[in-house]
Amino acid sequence: MSETASYARTPRTTPTRYRDRATWERAEIHAVLDSAWLCHLGFTDEQGRPVVLPTIYARVGDRLYLHGSTGSRPLRTAGRSAGLPVCVTVTQVDALVLTKSAFNHSVNFRSVVAHGLAEQVTDPAELAVALDALVDQAVPGRAADCRPANTKELAQTAVIRLVLDEVSAKIRQDGADDDPADEQLPHWSGLVPVRTVYGAPQPHPGTTRELPGYLADFQPGGPRG
Amino acid sequence: MSETASYARTPRTTPTRYRDRATWERAEIHAVLDSAWLCHLGFTDEQGRPVVLPTIYARVGDRLYLHGSTGSRPLRTAGRSAGLPVCVTVTQVDALVLTKSAFNHSVNFRSVVAHGLAEQVTDPAELAVALDALVDQAVPGRAADCRPANTKELAQTAVIRLVLDEVSAKIRQDGADDDPADEQLPHWSGLVPVRTVYGAPQPHPGTTRELPGYLADFQPGGPRG
Repeated sequence: MSETASYARTPRTTPTRYRDRATWERAEIHAVLDSAWLCHLGFTDEQGRPVVLPTIYARVGDRLYLHGSTGSRPLRTAGRSAGLPVCVTVTQVDALVLTKSAFNHSVNFRSVVAHGLAEQVTDPAELAVALDALVDQAVPGRAADCRPANTKELAQTAVIRLVLDEVSAKIRQDGADDDPADEQLPHWSGLVPVRTVYGAPQPHPGTTRELPGYLADFQPGGPRG
Repeated sequence: MSETASYARTPRTTPTRYRDRATWERAEIHAVLDSAWLCHLGFTDEQGRPVVLPTIYARVGDRLYLHGSTGSRPLRTAGRSAGLPVCVTVTQVDALVLTKSAFNHSVNFRSVVAHGLAEQVTDPAELAVALDALVDQAVPGRAADCRPANTKELAQTAVIRLVLDEVSAKIRQDGADDDPADEQLPHWSGLVPVRTVYGAPQPHPGTTRELPGYLADFQPGGPRG
């Protein structure tokens, strides 16, 4: 894949609504993906019915790696040669938007929707990269400060890869814009900021080591800026 | 549907992994649903490919209402008489679980996965209930303090209903349990609490009204306990 500034638009990455909120810019999409570590993985079951499961992911260049067990349903299916059709969605909420009319209420958010065929990672070198990335996506610096998986554990771990290709982001970062006809209504309007925060780390009773530097003042998105 | 204490178990609401984390208890499932207002809606497109989109929802008894536009893809499809096969997933993250081995790293979370046929709400009385619930799910008390949708706005709004029937929750609320063989390793282990918080409401410049009581000290899940 050439390193262009944008991913290609396709019919299914072109929203039917609020098209002005959509972007295919690589940097914007990567920024949203790098700000989170939880995604919702969509696939279809044997009867063609939709299934959506939460799981952790990591981005490495133009690849998303998703964590699973070798026994889990999507992972078993992704092991097939043709790959598993998936939709991976990441959503970050930034604010509740309260307007004077119920209709104009909204949410400020950043979301990424990626479509494609997921495949199970089988190459040991790629698997090692993916597993480190999955740990570091949530806690940057952690992969180098824990025991890597041993052979038995690796056999129980499966990772699927989705190449970012058919992907878009949708971003709303606006104010509480009331309709002109509503401006005189006696209701409060404005934004309620929403954010995810991390509390003080709680050591396991068996831990003798001091809190590592990467956990001091640790907050979402912090280490990546 | 009889008001039993549990939803029925079916093959697709019985996880293949960590079955001890699963529950079909109505009260537990409702508690998870009531603690959030964002879900990920999964359906399949015309080619049978999975699509996962974030949207807001509300729970009213054994019904989930999901918000959309009449022009959006899932809503158009749900207007068909047979309903739209969907999977609605709600995920709340409570902690990062850091163990001395990479393999045992985990996440404390509460999730609900609901399957079924979604239908568009067309009865005006039910639609009014659903729209109020959608506003109040995120901001309890707000529906009574804004202008309800007018006829033109109602025509642009669509709500789909999913009856809670084939639904389960999965909950992990454990510590950072290291393998006995790992306990002497020199790595930190423990929990990093994760929570969503609301910042101070930011009034729109045009707002003259004081901050309403339901927005004072407003935090996720607060009003519901």
